[in-house]
Amino acid sequence: MPLSTTAEPPRADPPLIVSIGDPAGVGPETIVQAWEQRHAIGLPPFAVACDAAALRAVWAGPVATISDLDDAARHYRHALPVLDVGSMGDSRPGRPTADGARLAFAALEAGVDLTVGGGASALVTGPVNKAALAAIGYRWPGQTEFVAERAGVSPEDAVMMLAGPSVRTVPVTIHVPLREVPARLTTALIVQRGRVTAEALRRDLGLRDPRLAVTGLNPHAGERGRLGDEEETVVRPAVEQLRAMGIDATGPLPADSLFAPHIRGRYDAMVCMYHDQALIPIKALDFDSGVNMTLGLPIVRTSPDHGTAFDIAGRGEARPDAMIAAIRMAALCAAHRRRPS
Amino acid sequence: MPLSTTAEPPRADPPLIVSIGDPAGVGPETIVQAWEQRHAIGLPPFAVACDAAALRAVWAGPVATISDLDDAARHYRHALPVLDVGSMGDSRPGRPTADGARLAFAALEAGVDLTVGGGASALVTGPVNKAALAAIGYRWPGQTEFVAERAGVSPEDAVMMLAGPSVRTVPVTIHVPLREVPARLTTALIVQRGRVTAEALRRDLGLRDPRLAVTGLNPHAGERGRLGDEEETVVRPAVEQLRAMGIDATGPLPADSLFAPHIRGRYDAMVCMYHDQALIPIKALDFDSGVNMTLGLPIVRTSPDHGTAFDIAGRGEARPDAMIAAIRMAALCAAHRRRPS
Repeated sequence: MPLSTTAEPPRADPPLIVSIGDPAGVGPETIVQAWEQRHAIGLPPFAVACDAAALRAVWAGPVATISDLDDAARHYRHALPVLDVGSMGDSRPGRPTADGARLAFAALEAGVDLTVGGGASALVTGPVNKAALAAIGYRWPGQTEFVAERAGVSPEDAVMMLAGPSVRTVPVTIHVPLREVPARLTTALIVQRGRVTAEALRRDLGLRDPRLAVTGLNPHAGERGRLGDEEETVVRPAVEQLRAMGIDATGPLPADSLFAPHIRGRYDAMVCMYHDQALIPIKALDFDSGVNMTLGLPIVRTSPDHGTAFDIAGRGEARPDAMIAAIRMAALCAAHRRRPS
Repeated sequence: MPLSTTAEPPRADPPLIVSIGDPAGVGPETIVQAWEQRHAIGLPPFAVACDAAALRAVWAGPVATISDLDDAARHYRHALPVLDVGSMGDSRPGRPTADGARLAFAALEAGVDLTVGGGASALVTGPVNKAALAAIGYRWPGQTEFVAERAGVSPEDAVMMLAGPSVRTVPVTIHVPLREVPARLTTALIVQRGRVTAEALRRDLGLRDPRLAVTGLNPHAGERGRLGDEEETVVRPAVEQLRAMGIDATGPLPADSLFAPHIRGRYDAMVCMYHDQALIPIKALDFDSGVNMTLGLPIVRTSPDHGTAFDIAGRGEARPDAMIAAIRMAALCAAHRRRPS
């Protein structure tokens, strides 16, 4: 009779990693508030890629400096685990500096690498300032493009989704002047956004047969051609291609009524044609709890759907709701990815 | 000592007039529900320009046919006062006919004339079907253009405002394909919309110094020119002209965050650049209670912010909230206009 082999002890899920963002913004104070509420609201262990000084500038609570993410869970009950990745220099809340931007970048880089390597189960990125990053030679338009590239994905294949308790929206075109939207909008782009969204809703949120709404570009979805023809020439063919892939897509639908209470619940995500069509409803309905998710990556990445808010940083006015929602969503998605399907 | 003259008895405010809209739509059932709730919610007297048969098709309640609006208030406690203005023919709920469209037009015409003449204090228009009206030779794009023309105002000078408990929005361009919006948007048009809106907020809603937000056209209001230049070339000059007129206008503001809970309360109305920018937030936030108001007219005119909903007409599913909100708003505006300023 063979001796039983020594089983490895069950290994806990890796912690999440939160990159601090610009240390002069509201990242530090929202992260420490999330940690303070960890027991009350059941937040899973996370560590912060940071300079501990950025937290101490706004907070007198306990910090545990760690050099290995494996130590995060052990400290998490009693102290906020911090991976020191750089120095904020003389940044102060509300006063961004080049050193602060460099720290934000170092934290982001460490966060991606740790998550790609499996040491962290998901990445939550704190808010950065694009101008401050550009000033230190950061060459990506935002954090998403860097995350995608570093994770081995073409930025064009990464898809932004805004997710809140009321609604999830995906803008097909994003930072494009309105007059250029019609020319930038193609059937292929809508299909790509819809496909990646449906895959992510299945893989990361566990929805078996996600229901996608696809908006029209024009008022009343073009009103049968009287108010524009892109619905027929561009959007409807995309919906048909998505359906041919087995995706439950509906559209083109009039965007103005789509977000009404009795209609929005019929869909798991809304694929919208341009920035404001997607961002107006999520910010109107779910402002404090909107999560920005990057879909189509090999890793889970979320971020709170707000900026650095330098004007209120360090005053104790910033609410942690969106940071908490981003951490929760990252943990949820990571759990779905780990679960054998 | 002179004898005191006989004072005229105090004259009650005239009733409101509600035009039935298409008798095959949800106009009849929402109007009778509003009347049923008149005591509970304190709705002021109104009469319906209608064919009484359209009400009886969906309702067994008491109807009082009147030939003079002065009789409306007397009946209102016990019966729904009806001014017979035509015949619905063989229209049925959900089954529109040419006779029904003719009735809708007759009711609208009577409603405008009674209000212009002072017999009614304000006009509330029930929902019509544009295609059905066009089929009987109605030559206006919607009800608003007819109301304006009949009331002696150029349709271009009438301004649509959507008003709800959370937000009021005014689209500068309305039923225009998105690709044509940038070319249609002019400084003069924004100024006209803003000026008429500010005047109406003063005259009809009693706001002494109304605060207007003016949105940008592009994402993030153009982000200092990186995402479009209309904010600087078209919108900002309009805001400056409005301010030079003594109007408290702010902008161009990023439309996506403008409707967030902590920002929208700072303004009394949002002047938006195009249809969906104005309609998405009002329908997302105030769907059941949105009122469509026509500003810039010599009369008060409101309507519920929904269509005929032929698909549910006559089934008892239509909620009267928007009709009630439209009646309330009309009464409020009429009262403000009567009040000596």
